[in-house]
Amino acid sequence: MTPTTPSAGARLSLNQKTVNSCTVPQVVELCRATGIGSVGLWREPVAEYGLQPTVDLVAEAGLRVSSLCRGGWFTATGTAFDEAIASNHAAIDEAAALGAACLCLVVGGLPEGSRDLGAARDQVAKALEILVPHAAEAGVTLALEPMNPIYAADRGVLSTLGQALDLAKPYPADQVGVMVDTYHVWWDPTLQGQLQRAGSEGRLVSYQVCDWITPLPADTLLARGMMGDGHIDFATIGGWVTEAGYTGDIEVEIFNADIWAADPRSVVDTMINRYGDLCAPYAG
Amino acid sequence: MTPTTPSAGARLSLNQKTVNSCTVPQVVELCRATGIGSVGLWREPVAEYGLQPTVDLVAEAGLRVSSLCRGGWFTATGTAFDEAIASNHAAIDEAAALGAACLCLVVGGLPEGSRDLGAARDQVAKALEILVPHAAEAGVTLALEPMNPIYAADRGVLSTLGQALDLAKPYPADQVGVMVDTYHVWWDPTLQGQLQRAGSEGRLVSYQVCDWITPLPADTLLARGMMGDGHIDFATIGGWVTEAGYTGDIEVEIFNADIWAADPRSVVDTMINRYGDLCAPYAG
Repeated sequence: MTPTTPSAGARLSLNQKTVNSCTVPQVVELCRATGIGSVGLWREPVAEYGLQPTVDLVAEAGLRVSSLCRGGWFTATGTAFDEAIASNHAAIDEAAALGAACLCLVVGGLPEGSRDLGAARDQVAKALEILVPHAAEAGVTLALEPMNPIYAADRGVLSTLGQALDLAKPYPADQVGVMVDTYHVWWDPTLQGQLQRAGSEGRLVSYQVCDWITPLPADTLLARGMMGDGHIDFATIGGWVTEAGYTGDIEVEIFNADIWAADPRSVVDTMINRYGDLCAPYAG
Repeated sequence: MTPTTPSAGARLSLNQKTVNSCTVPQVVELCRATGIGSVGLWREPVAEYGLQPTVDLVAEAGLRVSSLCRGGWFTATGTAFDEAIASNHAAIDEAAALGAACLCLVVGGLPEGSRDLGAARDQVAKALEILVPHAAEAGVTLALEPMNPIYAADRGVLSTLGQALDLAKPYPADQVGVMVDTYHVWWDPTLQGQLQRAGSEGRLVSYQVCDWITPLPADTLLARGMMGDGHIDFATIGGWVTEAGYTGDIEVEIFNADIWAADPRSVVDTMINRYGDLCAPYAG
């Protein structure tokens, strides 16, 4: 397998959520200062700085955009569903403008008051049907992100990689792919097989890394750790991702109050070291 | 399908963890006072009251013992593994003495400092090999309990019902079965199919109910809710359990600081009402 970039380290991408206090220019400057070649962007800070200024800044810095976070939230009902669809159409256009490798889809949890997991999951399929033609036209790959079952009720009813691949199946791989975040999938006993399947179907469009730490912080949304601080075996999972043929960027996305409160440059330095020790050696 | 008991309500079992402050005699008295016909016991309070006194008390009260919690913790290494095995041998004898429908196995998390999920899972298989002959001789069914992935690192590397059934496969169904707790499995997109498989293999030996509540309490070990307080669809899952041919007791096991602090009799009254509304109608 030939990496798409000259060295494994060059595949490291800084998801801007890891340095949550930073503006788009600050994130771009952090990448420039540390030699990181790729960035994962979020819609809200991009909107704050402006889409076109972000496009220009990223181009000028020579950065790849490994993903745009995020579309999704398809499980709303009534007008909220229509609003979600409209927002996703806009997100597709933004991802196209940014040349993002994919648009991350966090599909949403159970609608308020609903316990019908099956119906919520069906609604994700319905939203894809609506959005895929636009994504195809815009040349954007929609990336279904299976989420740790800890979020099944309130953030993502898509719980496994196998389920994500089943949802993607009706569509060409360049239109609907899957996004694998170690935090969400590390526990899955079928992970190796489903990664192989994702690879052979050509749908593995994003690989994100962060750790599962215990005890979980009180706010479980912010429960992710720096690689090496928790229980995940990045060597094994990274090896499987490589065997699946993935040669794209490896994005570090960490939601964690302590990391967000720390000096962004020191966070990025730690991230680069941990990535070099724990991820790069298995990146093919 | 013919229920094994005269009415659906008669299949309700009070797991003593739901009234965590109660001694064995207090739990038995609660069952007596409220007409509950079955109890799920824990080893520690049984040891505190005494095994034989518990056997006598339960027999005198005419209660079934739907499960004994718990064996397991197989993922320890070195002498800690040997101690775990010795403890499980004792648990098998206790389950036999109590006439428990099964011995619940919480298999254990990753060993301290280890990130090797595969090795930890292999060790569960190894422990079964050691324990099954004793369980068979004692007439005790070992019940593998898949746990919510939220606990994969620190409590249970067995994460799905499918994985539990794969582990059980080498053994006769009356020696190794599976235990299904809604809290642990409700999110699993393969649940219906795996419940059918469990039923057709004759391995579904315990059905426990409690709810998934959000936001999760800070101590995620105590994150379970009373049925109806959270997001789980007990009608759908209960229907699948019934279709799988399960006719045993339906046990309510709730770890929750607020519920533990409440008056036990009022907890049991609420439990009976919620069970009647949300579980009994789908119990076949």
